[in-house]
Amino acid sequence: MINGIVYLVGAGPGDPGLLTLRAAELLREADTVVYDRLVHPDILRHARPHARLIFAGKSGGGEQVAQDEINATLIAQARLGRRVVRLKGGDPFVFGRGGEEALELAAAGIPFEVVPGVSSGVAAPAAAGIPVTHRGISAAVTFATASLSGADPDWDHLSRSPTLVLFMAGKKLAEATQQLINRGRSASTPTAVVEAGTWAHQRVMQGTLATVARLADEAELGTPALLVVGDVVALREQLAQLGAKAEASRAEEAYS
Amino acid sequence: MINGIVYLVGAGPGDPGLLTLRAAELLREADTVVYDRLVHPDILRHARPHARLIFAGKSGGGEQVAQDEINATLIAQARLGRRVVRLKGGDPFVFGRGGEEALELAAAGIPFEVVPGVSSGVAAPAAAGIPVTHRGISAAVTFATASLSGADPDWDHLSRSPTLVLFMAGKKLAEATQQLINRGRSASTPTAVVEAGTWAHQRVMQGTLATVARLADEAELGTPALLVVGDVVALREQLAQLGAKAEASRAEEAYS
Repeated sequence: MINGIVYLVGAGPGDPGLLTLRAAELLREADTVVYDRLVHPDILRHARPHARLIFAGKSGGGEQVAQDEINATLIAQARLGRRVVRLKGGDPFVFGRGGEEALELAAAGIPFEVVPGVSSGVAAPAAAGIPVTHRGISAAVTFATASLSGADPDWDHLSRSPTLVLFMAGKKLAEATQQLINRGRSASTPTAVVEAGTWAHQRVMQGTLATVARLADEAELGTPALLVVGDVVALREQLAQLGAKAEASRAEEAYS
Repeated sequence: MINGIVYLVGAGPGDPGLLTLRAAELLREADTVVYDRLVHPDILRHARPHARLIFAGKSGGGEQVAQDEINATLIAQARLGRRVVRLKGGDPFVFGRGGEEALELAAAGIPFEVVPGVSSGVAAPAAAGIPVTHRGISAAVTFATASLSGADPDWDHLSRSPTLVLFMAGKKLAEATQQLINRGRSASTPTAVVEAGTWAHQRVMQGTLATVARLADEAELGTPALLVVGDVVALREQLAQLGAKAEASRAEEAYS
């Protein structure tokens, strides 16, 4: 059998500049690139003109079937002896199902390597002017998801994290914020929703745990969206004040 | 006044390939680079030959004074009209004090921009074969630190995170693991310590919450060290089994 290999590569949060040097190098050398919906088109330009690009974007519904198909594609391409880059938004191991794909590859006897990426959980709040940790304000940050099938979030645990970043929060904003309030998190806790963090069309809705779901609803929130809960959100006024360049160039904010 | 600017840039966890394209670009254009102890020497080679390189490594003791000096240096260099890159290990906002430096720059009227990096909290476990989240095993990960002055960790909260990644854990391993057991986390929880994650001299000590502090002690653990607690750690045998390249090339593991 020819020795193919699969690289499970984080593409970062969106901004093509946040791709890693190693990811760009692997793309330049790849025979096949299997990429997700949340990967910026400019990132794919690192691939060679004749590399095979396979779109593996998943939409709602038959998600498990699609994941099986992705796994089968990765294995089939590697067994053809190809250097395969599996390009995932953010980091492969932060709600990226990289572990599942790695286990499938291991079971099939396919060599693989994981290449971490900049996680949206850190970068999207940063692009909105929010540090997820800050001395004297938050010494812990929890990354969780509201939408992982098969698991109800432990809202009691999540409510107690100094900073909480909730992935895939769009459709569950009302429920998530209410659950956190029910478990004792103050309704006045500074809270933001970051839509498409680090992308050119990034938007930020800032309010409190009690108000942010309504603000997002009024702004017709799109995807991807992250919920950020905690006193660090209040630093945003100061950190955005003088206009870090990244902030100043983003004019589409609905609320601030 | 000439318009200088400061870029607060994440250098990633160590491996020079995990630097972002944007960070490399900013280094190529920088007049001054102020860098930390945990930045890989190869990363500094992106800077121009005549760029001014200033080492801002901090050791134990007088930490606050050193931070004041760093802030003063950044402001002074920017006021000379220079393009300053403040290069920090990991991500600037994940226990990197990037928020503090940004607030100082804002107060001084210096333009700044934050450039996220790959966080060691995700990449070091990944390099050890541990996904910090995994469907059906862990739908939340908490990053915390055992060593942030002025704040006692909320061990009860930390003990309940499906995955816990504790930064700067080296000197507090015995205390941290005992605290987590005292708050009800099972002593048999799979646990690992990752030393110098993604560096060539990376080491991994794997055991349980009850045993890992002793294992690390016997291995004469160095810095930086991350503690990883949770059932995801048990995936390591499977994910390292077929030798992701990154794993296979690291032969120095004391325990596995």
